[in-house]
Amino acid sequence: MKLIRFASLVVIVVGLCATSGTVFAGSFDRSVRTAENFEPTIPHPDQDQEVARKLANLAKKMGKKPNIVWLVVDDMGYGDVGRYGGGIGVGAATPSMDRLADEGLRLTSCYAQQTCTPTRSAILTGRLPVRTGLTRPILAGDKITENPWADEVSLPTILADAGYTSLLVGKWHIGEAEGMRPHDVGFDEYYGFYAAQKEISQRVDKRRYPDLVIDQEKFAAFEELGIGHSLVHGFKNGKTKNVSSIESTEDMGRADKVLADFTLDKIKKLAKDGKPFFLEHCFMKVHADNFANPDFEGLSASKYPYKDAVAEVDMHIGNIVKALEDNGLLENTFVFITSDNGPQMDAWPDGGYTPFRGAKGTTFEGGVRIPGIAYWPGVIAPGRESDDVFDLMDLFGTALNLAGVSRETLPDDRYYDFVDQTSFLLLDKGRSNREAVYFWWGSEFMACRMREYKSHVKVILPQAPHMYIDLALIQDVGLAPWLFNLYIDPKEEMTVGHRRNAWLATLGAKMKAHGATFKKYPPKDIGLGM
Amino acid sequence: MKLIRFASLVVIVVGLCATSGTVFAGSFDRSVRTAENFEPTIPHPDQDQEVARKLANLAKKMGKKPNIVWLVVDDMGYGDVGRYGGGIGVGAATPSMDRLADEGLRLTSCYAQQTCTPTRSAILTGRLPVRTGLTRPILAGDKITENPWADEVSLPTILADAGYTSLLVGKWHIGEAEGMRPHDVGFDEYYGFYAAQKEISQRVDKRRYPDLVIDQEKFAAFEELGIGHSLVHGFKNGKTKNVSSIESTEDMGRADKVLADFTLDKIKKLAKDGKPFFLEHCFMKVHADNFANPDFEGLSASKYPYKDAVAEVDMHIGNIVKALEDNGLLENTFVFITSDNGPQMDAWPDGGYTPFRGAKGTTFEGGVRIPGIAYWPGVIAPGRESDDVFDLMDLFGTALNLAGVSRETLPDDRYYDFVDQTSFLLLDKGRSNREAVYFWWGSEFMACRMREYKSHVKVILPQAPHMYIDLALIQDVGLAPWLFNLYIDPKEEMTVGHRRNAWLATLGAKMKAHGATFKKYPPKDIGLGM
Repeated sequence: MKLIRFASLVVIVVGLCATSGTVFAGSFDRSVRTAENFEPTIPHPDQDQEVARKLANLAKKMGKKPNIVWLVVDDMGYGDVGRYGGGIGVGAATPSMDRLADEGLRLTSCYAQQTCTPTRSAILTGRLPVRTGLTRPILAGDKITENPWADEVSLPTILADAGYTSLLVGKWHIGEAEGMRPHDVGFDEYYGFYAAQKEISQRVDKRRYPDLVIDQEKFAAFEELGIGHSLVHGFKNGKTKNVSSIESTEDMGRADKVLADFTLDKIKKLAKDGKPFFLEHCFMKVHADNFANPDFEGLSASKYPYKDAVAEVDMHIGNIVKALEDNGLLENTFVFITSDNGPQMDAWPDGGYTPFRGAKGTTFEGGVRIPGIAYWPGVIAPGRESDDVFDLMDLFGTALNLAGVSRETLPDDRYYDFVDQTSFLLLDKGRSNREAVYFWWGSEFMACRMREYKSHVKVILPQAPHMYIDLALIQDVGLAPWLFNLYIDPKEEMTVGHRRNAWLATLGAKMKAHGATFKKYPPKDIGLGM
Repeated sequence: MKLIRFASLVVIVVGLCATSGTVFAGSFDRSVRTAENFEPTIPHPDQDQEVARKLANLAKKMGKKPNIVWLVVDDMGYGDVGRYGGGIGVGAATPSMDRLADEGLRLTSCYAQQTCTPTRSAILTGRLPVRTGLTRPILAGDKITENPWADEVSLPTILADAGYTSLLVGKWHIGEAEGMRPHDVGFDEYYGFYAAQKEISQRVDKRRYPDLVIDQEKFAAFEELGIGHSLVHGFKNGKTKNVSSIESTEDMGRADKVLADFTLDKIKKLAKDGKPFFLEHCFMKVHADNFANPDFEGLSASKYPYKDAVAEVDMHIGNIVKALEDNGLLENTFVFITSDNGPQMDAWPDGGYTPFRGAKGTTFEGGVRIPGIAYWPGVIAPGRESDDVFDLMDLFGTALNLAGVSRETLPDDRYYDFVDQTSFLLLDKGRSNREAVYFWWGSEFMACRMREYKSHVKVILPQAPHMYIDLALIQDVGLAPWLFNLYIDPKEEMTVGHRRNAWLATLGAKMKAHGATFKKYPPKDIGLGM
């Protein structure tokens, strides 16, 4: 069993406040735990009924279950999107995402894990990375001691049982070994790259990595690591082939166009096929290292590769949604557009923009708060905005509901962290069913947000500007957990905890209750450590 | 003559680049100086003609000149407005401003001076504060040695000659002495408070200022300063009376409603009157110290007074625009919504939100980059957005154009810093006519922005978090002027100057040319120093 580090401060604070670790008198926790192995939810019986009626009416009209489309951009910052305060103001217009936000629901407190693999695995399992063992990005040379997927029940597997076709296009990054590939873990089809852009482009970018690319001996050693630089096409219980490979920075720059073209073509086929489908399209961009697509160089006002990448991804998002429309699918398709974590600022200027403190790799808002746009014309009212909290893991619970799968069918020997947010996302006046978001950094418990309050028990501090990954330290906070009010202090600069003991008591109790779930349901260790 | 401090670094850099101080080969400066005493502009002859035709057609249709309405919020941050990345995400929804931004033109690079009096005087004179002497907020006890208005030609004076009625409602803060009041300097009517909220509320807020309010001796001394805490109603060449006065924090909280009601009523009368009008409505909020209007307490999700103030101001803005609509004025009225500088963070938590570095009192983006929304249904196309630079002084030049006043009628013994931006603001594809924005801190020249590049020769650094006014120092930058690319580095963290010599050369030449204007047209000194 793996060691998880749950700060003693939490226990101290809760002790001081003399709580039992669950809801106590005077708490502002509105949530209720309805099963030992599920995250507590805020009871909204009216919402539950209303959304059930809404979906039933839709099913009657459509005659089939709704499609689910997730568009996941890699490392895009909260502030990169126009409707989130960026766009033209930071050198790359995002007209497609802005339009979809305007015509759908714009979430302003939408949270990812602080790095890639953790987020991508969490949304497909409904479970925190610390539970599945996928605590950090899988890197070249990692020895994974146990296939984490072996006993996980993935969303595409569940959806297959519910009659869905599942497809993942683009970046995977949750294991390249047999048994860990998308088409091994439930997806019917996979078309994409296993690794992130910078893992792939290292072998061809001699301007950035001359010591690797130009030195033949080192290059040979690097190649032996076998990092996937191929465009892979694989089928469940079928063949896996390499379609092509990235042999130049130009190839890398063109990769997202190749992937988008595949998805556009596939949407036509899915429309004809008639079965409900789950499509997760994961862009390679805007993860460092970015190379402008040579066919669209200078697409952004800024002209920097990162900005061109944002503009290109925005264009593909527009085209994919248009393909859904052109093929008559939009009325019956739930679309969600997001990013897997905050911008990676260590790669600056090949990095994005978050107005918040921190960046990818931290549990400050800059690392975990990301754009989240839910779009479904006719179902989600245009112009909706909400600051209620949403965790990307909730996409798992929402997908279950849309597919008509009860959470009771899930195994009861493990803890589930997702919350079903269907009623929040789909109803005109829907409110979040989630009370708290928990922030982990690998096996370290770091922080918790409830409403506009966020308490840190540990923090990650860079040792130099922008060095949030490459030169950062995890540090315990001082006398009391840091408490920020994100409404009056969105940049997390001024802790007010010692004057807000009542909030600390609620947050402390919540964190303690969260910690307790690991006692009955121990986390997995697959050798990624952290 | 006053001493202005123009950093020698500018001269050094320009010297290194061997330029003449005006446009040189290889410069990216597109602007042309067409008169010695006017700011150079980017030539757009097509735009000029098109907007002239547009306005002529409108005049034919309307039979009168267009009205001009400026809605100026006090100290509101860039990030406080939903469409600028704030709103619900920072605890105060701004539905009115968001709607007006959506239905008009949203400027993302709109600049004010870094404090109140400088901005407010600059937009009414078309001239930089360093030229008029109004270099900093006028504070209690200031001895002004010369009325700066005596030889300034104010916008309302010019507009009066062009047939306009002019009216200022709300905060003034550019002089309380006779000869310096709004109705002394060109406005036909004034209804408001001379001072900022915290100047006024000091005498009634014993929770914040017990040493003043509770100590009778000190209170008497304070009262002798005679800071205006009255609601003043004054007329050009007529009477000035005190309508009421602020005697409690509740009175202060209600002030903006009183002012808005006056404006709503006045709009009805102006509509009947039939003359074109210039209305500048200056909110007291959201300047510290904020008190929730007792009749709307808790209007914001956050419940903090600052956030309630943002929500209340947004409501009044919506009501004022609706009054224009209800009275049939909207079709012939140019509306501009903005703030006079960035948020004052020294007063935190009674302060706003800017995603940028710095705050009010600095020439980093946080101090000077503010929301700017131009709204004119039927004239300004809905959904427009532009990152082209705009200086609030350009409102002066734009007002001249709308009123049909040629800049040639202005005195030629002084320098004018405004640019006529009518074509930028009103045409569907209008581009900015301004090439550079210059940033001053009192008599210190600090920085210059051209396109997405900004160069600082001096900076203001806080000595403690948020202490941008109360505990800050002006410091020279190091070996070379700091150069930031605001597209890839909107937070001004990573200077790239030494690798962008060509940009520094252009910016250096621009700054030198700007400095040269002070030789022929010396600045005024009215005793505010700095």
